[in-house]
Amino acid sequence: MVDTSAPEATRRSERARRAIHEAALALVAEAGYRKTTIEGIAAPAGVGKQTIYRWWPSKAEVLLEAFLDLVEQHARQARNVPYEIPDTGDVAADLKAVLRATVDQLLDPRFAAPSRALAAEGLVDEQLGRRVVATLLEPQLQLYVRRLRAAQQAGQVRADVDPRIALELFVSPLAQRWLQHTGPVSHAYTDTLVDYALHGLAPR
Amino acid sequence: MVDTSAPEATRRSERARRAIHEAALALVAEAGYRKTTIEGIAAPAGVGKQTIYRWWPSKAEVLLEAFLDLVEQHARQARNVPYEIPDTGDVAADLKAVLRATVDQLLDPRFAAPSRALAAEGLVDEQLGRRVVATLLEPQLQLYVRRLRAAQQAGQVRADVDPRIALELFVSPLAQRWLQHTGPVSHAYTDTLVDYALHGLAPR
Repeated sequence: MVDTSAPEATRRSERARRAIHEAALALVAEAGYRKTTIEGIAAPAGVGKQTIYRWWPSKAEVLLEAFLDLVEQHARQARNVPYEIPDTGDVAADLKAVLRATVDQLLDPRFAAPSRALAAEGLVDEQLGRRVVATLLEPQLQLYVRRLRAAQQAGQVRADVDPRIALELFVSPLAQRWLQHTGPVSHAYTDTLVDYALHGLAPR
Repeated sequence: MVDTSAPEATRRSERARRAIHEAALALVAEAGYRKTTIEGIAAPAGVGKQTIYRWWPSKAEVLLEAFLDLVEQHARQARNVPYEIPDTGDVAADLKAVLRATVDQLLDPRFAAPSRALAAEGLVDEQLGRRVVATLLEPQLQLYVRRLRAAQQAGQVRADVDPRIALELFVSPLAQRWLQHTGPVSHAYTDTLVDYALHGLAPR
């Protein structure tokens, strides 16, 4: 956010930071992570590469910050800050709605290219992987934890269920299909995951 | 497998192939995937690097074949070929047993280093990723499909459940925790996944 009361120098560097974020996201989407370089980000952002080297320790860190910024802008445009999973009183419907929105994001190249790049790089570079999980993935998972806790209070999820494990029954299958191309992702698929997770595979 | 009736040249190349597999697995476990080179594999295997270049198109393909060989040898030693998930008549117990064994493998560096390297490289190189899924991951998932179909016949899993999706409720969470370091993996964790998946999160 540009704070209009900030001194001119701060506003200038905020604009440069935003331009670098946009250039990094565009380049990763066009050229892929491996062909993305600091030089390639600097030119369209209108800054010298030394500026980028001074602000970030690696290209992965530029991309992580750029992606976090994109996610926040997107939430802000949707007037959904601080973001929470809606609670309409119907946990199945609420989980299906948020997972359908996630499917749409995963199929949108603006989100897909950087998030796949960060996930891949995170598997190779364990330190980056832990930063991606801590800053990007775990905060999203905690939204499910809170929605499942509310469902427990409402008697729609068993009280003895650990919400942090329970959410993985529908979040992790979607993540694995999308990341590893182990199967197609669609609204019908995530709806099915929610139904199976809530009602179980065994006959009732 | 060495076929003792094979001509001497075939036996020699079979020995060389096995030596290359072992060298590739050892080097990946010691040095990591990025520092593993064809030259680094050739020397301890006692072959020239041209032999490796002639037989495989990339170091990832050497590692994939070596890992498939390791998995097959391991199954053979356990006299478990062709491998199937045991059917004791109790689907919960059978799924818990195979997932506990998987946890043990994921915590064993001999298996963990190459399988993590293949998964990571598969995210970056989509063609390799699809080969890893087709030759390594999907055949393992089909074992769960067969066990769940038997459970459907026995009335322990609902007839209207799609087994190929159902298995993801316990397999994908374990895969994501292990690959992305999103949480600890243990026997208690996979037991919980099976219980939640079979009985559901909602009260019965």
